[in-house]
Amino acid sequence: MDFKKTLEYKQRLINKRLEDLFSNIDAPQIIIEAMKYSLFAGGKRIRPILSIAVCEALNGRTEDVLDIACSIEMIHTYSLIHDDLPAMDNDDYRRGRLTNHKVYGDAIAILAGDGLLNYAFETMLNVMKRKNDKRFVDAAFEIAKASGVTGMIGGQVIDITNVGNIIDENSLISMHERKTGKLIEASCNVGAIIANRYDFLEITKEYSKNLGIAFQIVDDILDVIGEEEKLGKTVGKDAKNNKPTYVTLYGLEKSQELAREYSLKALEFANKIDNTGFLQDLTNYLLNRES
Amino acid sequence: MDFKKTLEYKQRLINKRLEDLFSNIDAPQIIIEAMKYSLFAGGKRIRPILSIAVCEALNGRTEDVLDIACSIEMIHTYSLIHDDLPAMDNDDYRRGRLTNHKVYGDAIAILAGDGLLNYAFETMLNVMKRKNDKRFVDAAFEIAKASGVTGMIGGQVIDITNVGNIIDENSLISMHERKTGKLIEASCNVGAIIANRYDFLEITKEYSKNLGIAFQIVDDILDVIGEEEKLGKTVGKDAKNNKPTYVTLYGLEKSQELAREYSLKALEFANKIDNTGFLQDLTNYLLNRES
Repeated sequence: MDFKKTLEYKQRLINKRLEDLFSNIDAPQIIIEAMKYSLFAGGKRIRPILSIAVCEALNGRTEDVLDIACSIEMIHTYSLIHDDLPAMDNDDYRRGRLTNHKVYGDAIAILAGDGLLNYAFETMLNVMKRKNDKRFVDAAFEIAKASGVTGMIGGQVIDITNVGNIIDENSLISMHERKTGKLIEASCNVGAIIANRYDFLEITKEYSKNLGIAFQIVDDILDVIGEEEKLGKTVGKDAKNNKPTYVTLYGLEKSQELAREYSLKALEFANKIDNTGFLQDLTNYLLNRES
Repeated sequence: MDFKKTLEYKQRLINKRLEDLFSNIDAPQIIIEAMKYSLFAGGKRIRPILSIAVCEALNGRTEDVLDIACSIEMIHTYSLIHDDLPAMDNDDYRRGRLTNHKVYGDAIAILAGDGLLNYAFETMLNVMKRKNDKRFVDAAFEIAKASGVTGMIGGQVIDITNVGNIIDENSLISMHERKTGKLIEASCNVGAIIANRYDFLEITKEYSKNLGIAFQIVDDILDVIGEEEKLGKTVGKDAKNNKPTYVTLYGLEKSQELAREYSLKALEFANKIDNTGFLQDLTNYLLNRES
């Protein structure tokens, strides 16, 4: 099967499972609607696909990793809802649609984010209850560390407290490592953990570290040269918001060079994980994207 | 040992463990400070004490339930921080001190709440990693259900979407059951679970259900007749905010009668759980409080 078809197949698998997980929840209609509004807003499902791809490449079972992969997507989605709030980045649009708080108001948006974070852990605990197996605890713990104040939340703190500041390369890398890097790393690590290939954790870490940095540099580049229509968000927003980025730090040309360097390193480690070529294709797809 | 001394001993135990859990976290200083500001704001530790009291009464080990009890307190604290936000209840004071967002700003307050919720699950997963035992998974799952959109978050949604509405008794009970009842119930249930006395779950549910309703009625009464100084918050706030309460629904006298009725039922079930008298004393203490 070619890459695009395999990718779309995995996206459908994730969407279908997320639909199932969000049906028949005994909760006020409006909060389910608000959570689903952002969860099904056209996200590319990069993180859950990484979990599934690594797990499959290491001969793990797709159905074993699926709910954990979906939980990661819930956590990613909650972080976007909260990041977009007026008190934070104050974004009106994401992926070409109104942000959660623009549709449901700030209060419901905050609660929808809380609800998604909570439901991610509830979903993972549900798996642990069904399967009495240490791997699932290890995977959930990996995710919890990555999404908490030592990871994603901490990165967002560094981000919002540094608006308007000039920060050096190390601080910029450290911010992104926490804000987006750790959850991408956890996504790959849980693939190895669920496949019961703990011996691959060093390699998945190196792969995801390089992938994460390259991905962020591409993100910063697209904010400068991307097309608004394809991105579904305002171009030049980082500069307008005085956000430190790779482009403001190094300029466009050096940033593109760095993106290439980190991409090649990521591919090198992808080769050690996957002999089907999917993870390599996925890596290229993520790093050569236009949106 | 007399009740007050035992209570204070347990509060110190919880505070000490929380202090330990929040030392040496590798995260930006400001977010740790903001989380601790609300976590150590003079809370009475009712929920974790319920977990410990039920666990001990059923011959479970205190050290087995302690981290789970502390996680419940983190979840309770995060919910207070988010509830107080301008987008929600817009409260400037809680327990006589400025609310989190008044000190740290809305962005950090949102992230401090997120961080506490995430860290609660991280803490429980850490226990599960150390002790490979189904009880800890069951306990964490119980808490996740209680704090999510089917429980506490759902209750808050009903609350904020009903400001200014007149709702009937069933809706009022259902709102409180979700908003505060379910987490109180989970606090008691995990005590029985960690003590490995699943056969007591029906009794802990009945106990906590009656306790929760009585507790809420007392809360509503105190909002009308309490002393601001003792409460540390504005009296008459519910009426000012057009919030439906037991007192607006039934009047003061009938509410006091109902509080007595539910208290007696709670005590009846407390007798079935605890033969040391502590849970009974705790119940009386919670329902005869002035703040």
